[in-house]
Amino acid sequence: MSQFRIRSKIWLEVDGQPFLGDGRYRLLSAVQRKGSINAAARELGLSYRKVWAQLKAMEETAPFPLMQQRKGGKDGGATCLTPEVLELMGHFEKMRNQVNGEADRCFSKHFGEEADRC
Amino acid sequence: MSQFRIRSKIWLEVDGQPFLGDGRYRLLSAVQRKGSINAAARELGLSYRKVWAQLKAMEETAPFPLMQQRKGGKDGGATCLTPEVLELMGHFEKMRNQVNGEADRCFSKHFGEEADRC
Repeated sequence: MSQFRIRSKIWLEVDGQPFLGDGRYRLLSAVQRKGSINAAARELGLSYRKVWAQLKAMEETAPFPLMQQRKGGKDGGATCLTPEVLELMGHFEKMRNQVNGEADRCFSKHFGEEADRC
Repeated sequence: MSQFRIRSKIWLEVDGQPFLGDGRYRLLSAVQRKGSINAAARELGLSYRKVWAQLKAMEETAPFPLMQQRKGGKDGGATCLTPEVLELMGHFEKMRNQVNGEADRCFSKHFGEEADRC
C-alpha cells in the first residue's frame, strides 16, 4: 500500500474557536519578519484587508496582546509581535514538528516494508 | 496559557490528492454498518447524491475496489466494503489515535502545569 502518504496538522483553539494553525502561523511570521501588516500581505500575496481581518479575529480571542508598535528609527517605527505571541509560536512549531514526526513513524509502522511483520 | 486546547487530524493522500480523512471514514463506516449507500446517507443526514459522489471520488483514486455486493438473504443483498478497505480503515483509526495521543502529550509538555519546569 505504498501509494499512500500520510499528512497531519495541528491547531490551537481558544474557547472552541480556531486560534492558531499553519495559515495564521505563516501570517504572523511574515508580520514579524517584514515589520508591517502591509508588507506581510504583499509577501503572502493576500490583500491588506484579508490579513487585517485575520489578525483582528485573533486579537479578539487572544488572552494577550498580539502586536506592538516599535517607535522611531529611520523608517518611523514598525509593527512587531509581542513576546507572548512569539513564545506561543515557538511552542506551536515544536508541537507541529513532533506530531508530524509521530504521524510519519505511525505510517512507516503500518504501511512500510516492515508492516507485514508487525 | 491553559485557555488553549490542541486539536489534530491526519489524512491519507494518493498521488497528492486527499483520499481518506475523518469525514470519509465516517461515511465508509456508515455504509458498512447500514448495508447500503442510501441508508448510510440517511444516517449521516446527507443526500444520496453527495455520499455517492464522495464514494465515486474515492473509487477513482483507490488502488483497490472499495465496495462489493453481498447477494441473497431476505432483503435481497447489501452493499459492503471490501476487505482491503476495512484493513485500511483499521490502520487509519490506529494511526489517528496514536497521533492524537502524541498531540495531547506535546500539549501537556508545552502548556501543562509542568511546562515551566521543562
